[in-house]
Amino acid sequence: MKVGFLGLGQMGSAMAANLVKAGHEVTVYNRSHEKTRPLAELGAHAATEVADACQGQAVYTMVADDKALEAMVFGEAGLLSSLPTNGIHISASTISVALSEKLLEAHAKAGQRFVTAPVFGRPEAAAAAKLFIVAAGEAQTLSECTPLFDAIGQRIFILSDHPPDANLIKLSGNFLIGSVIEALGEAMALVGKAGVDPHAYLDMLTSTLFGAPVYKTYGGLIAGGVFEPAGFAAPLGQKDIRLTLAAAESLNVPMPIASLLRDRFLTLIAQGGENLDWSAIGKLAARDSGQ
Amino acid sequence: MKVGFLGLGQMGSAMAANLVKAGHEVTVYNRSHEKTRPLAELGAHAATEVADACQGQAVYTMVADDKALEAMVFGEAGLLSSLPTNGIHISASTISVALSEKLLEAHAKAGQRFVTAPVFGRPEAAAAAKLFIVAAGEAQTLSECTPLFDAIGQRIFILSDHPPDANLIKLSGNFLIGSVIEALGEAMALVGKAGVDPHAYLDMLTSTLFGAPVYKTYGGLIAGGVFEPAGFAAPLGQKDIRLTLAAAESLNVPMPIASLLRDRFLTLIAQGGENLDWSAIGKLAARDSGQ
Amino acid sequence: MKVGFLGLGQMGSAMAANLVKAGHEVTVYNRSHEKTRPLAELGAHAATEVADACQGQAVYTMVADDKALEAMVFGEAGLLSSLPTNGIHISASTISVALSEKLLEAHAKAGQRFVTAPVFGRPEAAAAAKLFIVAAGEAQTLSECTPLFDAIGQRIFILSDHPPDANLIKLSGNFLIGSVIEALGEAMALVGKAGVDPHAYLDMLTSTLFGAPVYKTYGGLIAGGVFEPAGFAAPLGQKDIRLTLAAAESLNVPMPIASLLRDRFLTLIAQGGENLDWSAIGKLAARDSGQ
Amino acid sequence: MKVGFLGLGQMGSAMAANLVKAGHEVTVYNRSHEKTRPLAELGAHAATEVADACQGQAVYTMVADDKALEAMVFGEAGLLSSLPTNGIHISASTISVALSEKLLEAHAKAGQRFVTAPVFGRPEAAAAAKLFIVAAGEAQTLSECTPLFDAIGQRIFILSDHPPDANLIKLSGNFLIGSVIEALGEAMALVGKAGVDPHAYLDMLTSTLFGAPVYKTYGGLIAGGVFEPAGFAAPLGQKDIRLTLAAAESLNVPMPIASLLRDRFLTLIAQGGENLDWSAIGKLAARDSGQ
Repeated sequence: MKVGFLGLGQMGSAMAANLVKAGHEVTVYNRSHEKTRPLAELGAHAATEVADACQGQAVYTMVADDKALEAMVFGEAGLLSSLPTNGIHISASTISVALSEKLLEAHAKAGQRFVTAPVFGRPEAAAAAKLFIVAAGEAQTLSECTPLFDAIGQRIFILSDHPPDANLIKLSGNFLIGSVIEALGEAMALVGKAGVDPHAYLDMLTSTLFGAPVYKTYGGLIAGGVFEPAGFAAPLGQKDIRLTLAAAESLNVPMPIASLLRDRFLTLIAQGGENLDWSAIGKLAARDSGQ
Repeated sequence: MKVGFLGLGQMGSAMAANLVKAGHEVTVYNRSHEKTRPLAELGAHAATEVADACQGQAVYTMVADDKALEAMVFGEAGLLSSLPTNGIHISASTISVALSEKLLEAHAKAGQRFVTAPVFGRPEAAAAAKLFIVAAGEAQTLSECTPLFDAIGQRIFILSDHPPDANLIKLSGNFLIGSVIEALGEAMALVGKAGVDPHAYLDMLTSTLFGAPVYKTYGGLIAGGVFEPAGFAAPLGQKDIRLTLAAAESLNVPMPIASLLRDRFLTLIAQGGENLDWSAIGKLAARDSGQ
Repeated sequence: MKVGFLGLGQMGSAMAANLVKAGHEVTVYNRSHEKTRPLAELGAHAATEVADACQGQAVYTMVADDKALEAMVFGEAGLLSSLPTNGIHISASTISVALSEKLLEAHAKAGQRFVTAPVFGRPEAAAAAKLFIVAAGEAQTLSECTPLFDAIGQRIFILSDHPPDANLIKLSGNFLIGSVIEALGEAMALVGKAGVDPHAYLDMLTSTLFGAPVYKTYGGLIAGGVFEPAGFAAPLGQKDIRLTLAAAESLNVPMPIASLLRDRFLTLIAQGGENLDWSAIGKLAARDSGQ
Repeated sequence: MKVGFLGLGQMGSAMAANLVKAGHEVTVYNRSHEKTRPLAELGAHAATEVADACQGQAVYTMVADDKALEAMVFGEAGLLSSLPTNGIHISASTISVALSEKLLEAHAKAGQRFVTAPVFGRPEAAAAAKLFIVAAGEAQTLSECTPLFDAIGQRIFILSDHPPDANLIKLSGNFLIGSVIEALGEAMALVGKAGVDPHAYLDMLTSTLFGAPVYKTYGGLIAGGVFEPAGFAAPLGQKDIRLTLAAAESLNVPMPIASLLRDRFLTLIAQGGENLDWSAIGKLAARDSGQ
């Protein structure tokens, strides 16, 4: 397929590279142009303008937040005005449900198609084409995108034909991870204050009922107490909880753990944790308990 | 080994049976005597008094709560007055840290030994000798108990030589399960209100980052919405959160999710949920949101 | 003084009327024109356009929310483009701190002056010119506005020369009222479940340590259990908590009671309480407890 | 009346003194005998044993906690075994609802009468005979006690004929005070971080909607930031919240602000605040926000 790829951060670069490797004709764009170089070496076309990357059947976007995506789509000579009629915008970014609704409407009005395909997985999984993709949109459109998804991920979950639902599900997933961090933080503060070794404790948990990747990854970070360099920085985690709460407010769903996580991130950042990994909120229970 | 086994509920019966099968000489006791019969058929001795089951090298206890264990240990002709000098009391019940401290002291005064060995696992795991055992106590004593542990569990975790620590760890584990139930309940209320199918959602979660047994088991219960018959009744979950909070108070550790779980159980029970499985608290977020 | 008054809801009408009665030359404007009539009868000029009310030394605004104020100020032929150089915009609405910051900047750029003067008090207090005014802005400008404040309120509190601070303080005041409602709701659920009469209980509280107007007003509403017609509707209370949390997020201040209030409003509205008085959240603790 | 008075702390001494001054024949007792001296000088009899103070028509108790009262009542030669048939035990201490239930039953069994009469007010109010008394018990018995109540307090509130209800109400009152401290703490953290002076802010609050004694007293302490010497020490506040939560648990009433207060006290004490006034929890929001 002839596709564009906008947004070449750590995740986006790996995803775009896998598209190229799978044989697709990919034109890549990034606000700071030098990030296109490694992809050009792999065989991608390097665009200097957003519009140049929007001339194929589909364009993938993978950027940091709502603001970046809005600028890219609605800006002058942006995605919206450049994508051909019937072209597909595949949004993989973790954005707000509200922006997703707005994009759905704007693309429909412009005679274009819009699907969402946010991913679960860290940069290593992206590099290995092992991402999990949660896609939402019209069945026919998603079907056309399947070769792209296959090049990037290990499994695709289609849970809805309404694109914003995938954004909601992605946010809920990050909320669940945040809940694991907080719960582990409280449990470790408790047993830690009694003198139990946190690594041995975590090994027991992950060898028994809690043998999921999130417990290993985040439990290890909390037990080790080293939160720099950040794999996923605190302000990004805070943003996802903010977007979760915003979506929950629109739907009138009270989520007390999400509210607690919001307060934890505010505390962490107020006390200088802006550059730490988001799992650093898992140390606040211990700190409150005087450890 | 020649051992006693006190407390023949669903878990205790399965554990005692595995001790018999492993070739130990087991004398079993239960307050309501008829529960000793199936074990007698397997080859156990059936005692009609607590004291009769306390004549071996060790006695295992597995009862419902502090009150039951206190009656058994401190009552007339109870475990404490019947166990020989140097005999070992192996406490497997989920009891308070405070009672464990009290037992440690009482047995030491009586010239007896005390270790704790609470288990993780449901009745099926107990029947299959696949329990996880979290043991705490003097290394030498635990070593003597190893043949018993091997007959019952698939793996033993020794995290401390101070017996009450294993009780604390067991409570913290149940707190972590409760946290999973609450977090899943909130996430499912959120995506459910947007119209996403809860079973498909759960399948996605457990196929990706949350592939641990607890997510499958409790997520399935919440998605299905059927909480009877209870695998683990709400008042038992409430009790464990109560004991977690009591231990946290002794150690001066604030645990906001545990406080939230406490309030959830009160709400569930105030509204008639006394006979439901404890995972029914995972429906309260949905109910609050008008679903 | 020659002043404009924009926004003639229940509060605004009473405030404008008091300005007229105090001898000021007042031009009033409201989106639905018929609300200007009673004021015209009192001697005010009735404008049909925003711009017509912005020709004096100062213009007062008192509208429902950010959106209404933004439309009025930034719209075509709006306040910003109509107010003369050096003219004063006195904002009395309960708006976000962020909008107040934006107005401050915009007016400065336009060579105009901006002060904030939100009020505490219900419609009866407004009618009686007994409002409490929390004003913020440059000392000189506030001094020029004093004759207007005197016509409207019983006391003026100047706590800052930075206009958005008065908006923050107003929001914090509504947060404190919300906290009283919630705390009373929990206490009344507790004693109520034991069978204590809520009116007698409230009488005791307000006769002893809690003899403030808010306890009498809101305690009476909760004890009576009648929340219609709404004196201050739930969505307005929800909005103020939302703005409080937004300001707290900007300042990195975690406010757990505010988060709880947020969840309470979501629950109330999810369950159909949109038209109830905001004090109806004070019944949720009782409902959770099965009363 | 001929009465005994057990427990001569700051509050009890002042109350007993007022009984003496009102002309009653008072026998006082305190565990550490020297506290009886000032009262003996006023005309009281000083007992060296509990039993000696239990020979009149009624005996008042005013001690620190459940444990102290249980020792005094149920101990050898204690109140229960010393009070004559039909004698009245007036319990003024802030104790648990559960202990009050137990006392009610024990006294009934012993042919004695039991009423509760906890008080609101600080030591100065006790000295000035200006306490507020919340009494509960049989109407006839309370009527007999009226001369005693009149000597001590400025107003009596009778809200129930079931003695434990007054204990519940007293606890709920302390919970409400704790809620005020927390809410003020959050509001002051918010406006404080924006640079608003806390004393000016508090003056505004207490001059407008929040003109109750508790706002003045506790707001002043939080604004001043000086929590030593403690008027009411943190562990006492913590105890009252613990007893509130225990009563709420018995009645199945979830109280999220009470849970929050519990966590605040744990944090305060974990961080070394054991000797501070309980209002020091009102600084935790500011601390979390990096102030």
